[in-house]
Amino acid sequence: MVTIKNIADSLNISTSTVSKALNDATDISAELRQAVLEKAVEMGYTTKSSRKKINRKLAVLIKNMAYGTQKDFGYNILLGFRQAAMNRDWNVEVVDVTRDLMVNEKYDTYLLKHGFSGAFCLGFTLRDPWTTQFQTSQMPTVLLDNFVSENPHVACIGTENTESMEYAIQHLVMLHHRRIAFFCGEAHSRVSQDRLDAFERAMEAQGLKVHNEMILFGDYLTPEVRNHLAPAFEKNATAIVCANDIIAANVIDECVRCGRRVPEDVSVIGFDDIPLASITEPPLTTIRQNRKNIGMLAMTVLSELCDHVPIALVQIRPQLIIRGSTAKAPEL
Amino acid sequence: MVTIKNIADSLNISTSTVSKALNDATDISAELRQAVLEKAVEMGYTTKSSRKKINRKLAVLIKNMAYGTQKDFGYNILLGFRQAAMNRDWNVEVVDVTRDLMVNEKYDTYLLKHGFSGAFCLGFTLRDPWTTQFQTSQMPTVLLDNFVSENPHVACIGTENTESMEYAIQHLVMLHHRRIAFFCGEAHSRVSQDRLDAFERAMEAQGLKVHNEMILFGDYLTPEVRNHLAPAFEKNATAIVCANDIIAANVIDECVRCGRRVPEDVSVIGFDDIPLASITEPPLTTIRQNRKNIGMLAMTVLSELCDHVPIALVQIRPQLIIRGSTAKAPEL
Repeated sequence: MVTIKNIADSLNISTSTVSKALNDATDISAELRQAVLEKAVEMGYTTKSSRKKINRKLAVLIKNMAYGTQKDFGYNILLGFRQAAMNRDWNVEVVDVTRDLMVNEKYDTYLLKHGFSGAFCLGFTLRDPWTTQFQTSQMPTVLLDNFVSENPHVACIGTENTESMEYAIQHLVMLHHRRIAFFCGEAHSRVSQDRLDAFERAMEAQGLKVHNEMILFGDYLTPEVRNHLAPAFEKNATAIVCANDIIAANVIDECVRCGRRVPEDVSVIGFDDIPLASITEPPLTTIRQNRKNIGMLAMTVLSELCDHVPIALVQIRPQLIIRGSTAKAPEL
Repeated sequence: MVTIKNIADSLNISTSTVSKALNDATDISAELRQAVLEKAVEMGYTTKSSRKKINRKLAVLIKNMAYGTQKDFGYNILLGFRQAAMNRDWNVEVVDVTRDLMVNEKYDTYLLKHGFSGAFCLGFTLRDPWTTQFQTSQMPTVLLDNFVSENPHVACIGTENTESMEYAIQHLVMLHHRRIAFFCGEAHSRVSQDRLDAFERAMEAQGLKVHNEMILFGDYLTPEVRNHLAPAFEKNATAIVCANDIIAANVIDECVRCGRRVPEDVSVIGFDDIPLASITEPPLTTIRQNRKNIGMLAMTVLSELCDHVPIALVQIRPQLIIRGSTAKAPEL
């Protein structure tokens, strides 16, 4: 076990200085504090509360994801995580991570400085500064939908993408669709790439051709959806699989605006099954991610990582929810 | 919740007959007992002890795998599973599954009849009769190294294969090997196929050509190893990656017998890191599976499945253990 004395010795400073740095005291310089924190992380120092398993706390770090109200994607994930944490006597703090914070603080030293034993990170993209740090982090970390290789401190959790896309494509094929577009979402996200791979495999498994012109990335606010729908329809797409329900809802709105009927002219499938999915017009056929289960499992996994069990990946089963936005393909 | 009365009503028999069948009483016919058990499984009936969470028991079902002594592959898996089960007040029974049992009993009704809430299944191959039943089983089941699609009651656990093969191939490439053979093990096993896929991806990632003549399946008792080594050496293989340590140990023995030095003439890498790996001559470089962690996690996952959390897949990190069986490639 690494002690404060070990850290002090290796930096050739006093134990009281190390203690000040770890407890965020004001009477040492910012540079020295940072040097102590980095050495503590490097040596694998863990706080007393982490070791004694009392008053331990975990961070839920959130970027690019809404979670405040029941309709938001992150809400049920947080709910599940908090419930599981309560059952195991962990405290949880939720932190909205800004780009400024990521630029000014290293991920590991941020957690150590604030007394977190580990973190569950939601919504980080490949462009966020902390994402590269996850590859070498020494802090127990669970990432939603974002795989990191070869780091025993970091696990990924998510919904099985292969099965998800198989459900979507099988459903469309049963409805005689053959020309299927895929609206991927954010290009710089690991989960978009994984779902695209899974989409291509599922299409091939059904003997369907993947048309590159029908695979489109974007944030999918309404104007962007407009620009992407045109090429898909030019290629006679009769169905559009979307990487999340918000994209799918925008696609439905935009189809209506330009005179295409859903599902008579075009079928639309979402992903996630957030509350929005059941109140679109028509309600959305979608791949359900059980977000409460994801949150609960993330807590279990984080707790195992804190006990040095090197989990790499945990995936849960998706579920196809059939509603009104899919129907038999039109005769072209 | 499904009751004995529900089962009785749906079969149009008395509740006492259902009770007799579920409790394995002798005064009803085998056919009727089986019909009751199958209906109970179909309706999702769970035993009272499962529901009340007292005196619950789980089965560890073992096929084709040694586990009795510390040197056996299954020993630490069982140890981890038992320890985790004890911490959560589950009872565990270990069952050696025979082919006869699988032919004469259905998997689900076997578990229900013997009062098991779920099972951890080790060593089943694609040819074992129960393997197809895992696809439709309604009983919480964790499979080691054997993935089943689209069944929310069944999860797979294992070691991350992609990373494992990356470690092996990266290590060999650093030692200037380019012509690398792969001895896969049992062809009818899911994990052999997954590791082969991972081997091919890792070779490609390093810009190396996969030679089909150097990829060989088999049980790898000594005579078979002999037959497989010849074609690998004909193709100038300088390194052999093996799907488990027992194959690797046989490869080393056979190399010595036919006058090839390990590691001077040929490098050998194993998989698993069972105790044998450190006592071969030379000791074996291998990919460690942390089998105790796998056992502990299997228990956690089974417990989540019993609570209806539909986990599909859990993978743990491998670790490259460098010993004496790998060295710089010979000049050819």
